[in-house]
Amino acid sequence: MNEFQLIQTYFNQADLSFSHPNICHSIGDDCAELSIPSGKNLVTSIDTLVDGVHFPQGASAYDIATRSLCVSLSDLAAMGAVPIGFTLAITLPSLNEQWVKEFSGGLIEIARMFNCPLFGGDTTKGPVLVITIQVHGFVARGASIKRSGAQVGDKVYVSGCLGDGAGALPIVLNDPLIRSGLAQHFYKPLPRIDFGQSILPYATSALDISDGLIQDLGHICAASEVGMEIDIDSIPMSELLLNTYDREQALQYALNGGDDYQLAYTSSHCENGICIGRVVEGNQVLVDGQLIGNTGYQHF
Amino acid sequence: MNEFQLIQTYFNQADLSFSHPNICHSIGDDCAELSIPSGKNLVTSIDTLVDGVHFPQGASAYDIATRSLCVSLSDLAAMGAVPIGFTLAITLPSLNEQWVKEFSGGLIEIARMFNCPLFGGDTTKGPVLVITIQVHGFVARGASIKRSGAQVGDKVYVSGCLGDGAGALPIVLNDPLIRSGLAQHFYKPLPRIDFGQSILPYATSALDISDGLIQDLGHICAASEVGMEIDIDSIPMSELLLNTYDREQALQYALNGGDDYQLAYTSSHCENGICIGRVVEGNQVLVDGQLIGNTGYQHF
Repeated sequence: MNEFQLIQTYFNQADLSFSHPNICHSIGDDCAELSIPSGKNLVTSIDTLVDGVHFPQGASAYDIATRSLCVSLSDLAAMGAVPIGFTLAITLPSLNEQWVKEFSGGLIEIARMFNCPLFGGDTTKGPVLVITIQVHGFVARGASIKRSGAQVGDKVYVSGCLGDGAGALPIVLNDPLIRSGLAQHFYKPLPRIDFGQSILPYATSALDISDGLIQDLGHICAASEVGMEIDIDSIPMSELLLNTYDREQALQYALNGGDDYQLAYTSSHCENGICIGRVVEGNQVLVDGQLIGNTGYQHF
Repeated sequence: MNEFQLIQTYFNQADLSFSHPNICHSIGDDCAELSIPSGKNLVTSIDTLVDGVHFPQGASAYDIATRSLCVSLSDLAAMGAVPIGFTLAITLPSLNEQWVKEFSGGLIEIARMFNCPLFGGDTTKGPVLVITIQVHGFVARGASIKRSGAQVGDKVYVSGCLGDGAGALPIVLNDPLIRSGLAQHFYKPLPRIDFGQSILPYATSALDISDGLIQDLGHICAASEVGMEIDIDSIPMSELLLNTYDREQALQYALNGGDDYQLAYTSSHCENGICIGRVVEGNQVLVDGQLIGNTGYQHF
């Protein structure tokens, strides 16, 4: 099976590149074409995952695919956007049909779950597996949630339990084929798309927690020129995490581990999520009054 | 200089991520935000270039950048689109400031030339240099030129000389730092953006010639369910190519070499470009009545 046949069979199949009201023209031309609803803007984000860097070597093609699409969609969730579709640029060491079939299966699961079909891409040969996904969605003009809107007096919220992604990492590094328990948070960190839309009316700032809570809250503080006080006892952690690690290690993962893909946001009043602190004057994130080391994910 | 500082200094600089009326929100949030003019659709295309595969190892960062952005923009040209901006996902073996500085210099030259700023991206670490660029533009709704509209009786046109890109390849493989003569067609294959917009009113189909004329015309034939007859004497070739290679070799490059990034299009009447043949019934591309071997670029 050559490149064109392979793409046709597994990437351009009806289960993956399914029709969507905002996709006028999909795979097969030099460009894809999207129509953006009147009064809406397009929001888009691009993310790369490299074999052995962003997922362990030896992980299954299916799991690599679900993780890749989930982490990209998480950026749409952080803006409060409705997904339209995604593009995929994949560099493969060889054309292994079984691998591509499993990979497309993982994409299909997540694409269907979030009504976000594949509408374009590029398949290239290279010495290492590199996956780049760009996701596309829309928001009402002027309504997207940015990092720069946090106000002194706002409270700080998160959308769910923290630390599961970082807690899963030692487990999948030890056995890349484990999928149950914490490992599923690594391979399938379901993006909080609905949550992102639900906080649109009252969130003053938001982002997805990918590099670690403290580092990511620091991004909101820098963009909004504010500080934050976080109450350590309010940090939500799963029973799964607390049953696997002692409390101190679990808290380390929750505060500084990456890969959570929950949303953090600020608002003057809570309607959704878990309140973990407040926005104050300053430029630092303090945890129970202390400046703790920022050991979140370093990309280089 | 860490990742954030490097991105801030070289990718998020005013010369590269300059303002554009359709970019509401650029680098710095989870997503970028574009506003598409009323009555227009977004067109977009993603392309990957891998070190040692799509450009020779040892090429300068500047030249890699100009080539990467040019070949991506060529897809917008083929749709008759006006550029808005591009995203960049780059995987680097290490953070070499001088390399990133030169690379951003090459991007700036092409981005400025086509009013197409950088508005988002992802920088990752990996064992090999991989560059993925997604370009974004707009066209009037229903006006984009697709591959599927060629009609029996149309003529076949190209936008300029063919074979220079393929003729340059042995030269740059021999010395990746040569920039003059044919080599500039490899590193700076300027996308035919204005030409693409000029043929919008009368082109029935179009694409950019990236894999070789005969292979690419075959894509129009397949999408439009037609055949083509090409007149070999009408194939335009540059003096530079004909002074470098004998006529037979030059023709081989023009017919089957890749990397031209001229446009090929069909129309019932010519107003622009060079007529090289006609659309006929059938499903094959014949050159002077002969079916010639399709030895265009094979991706795997």
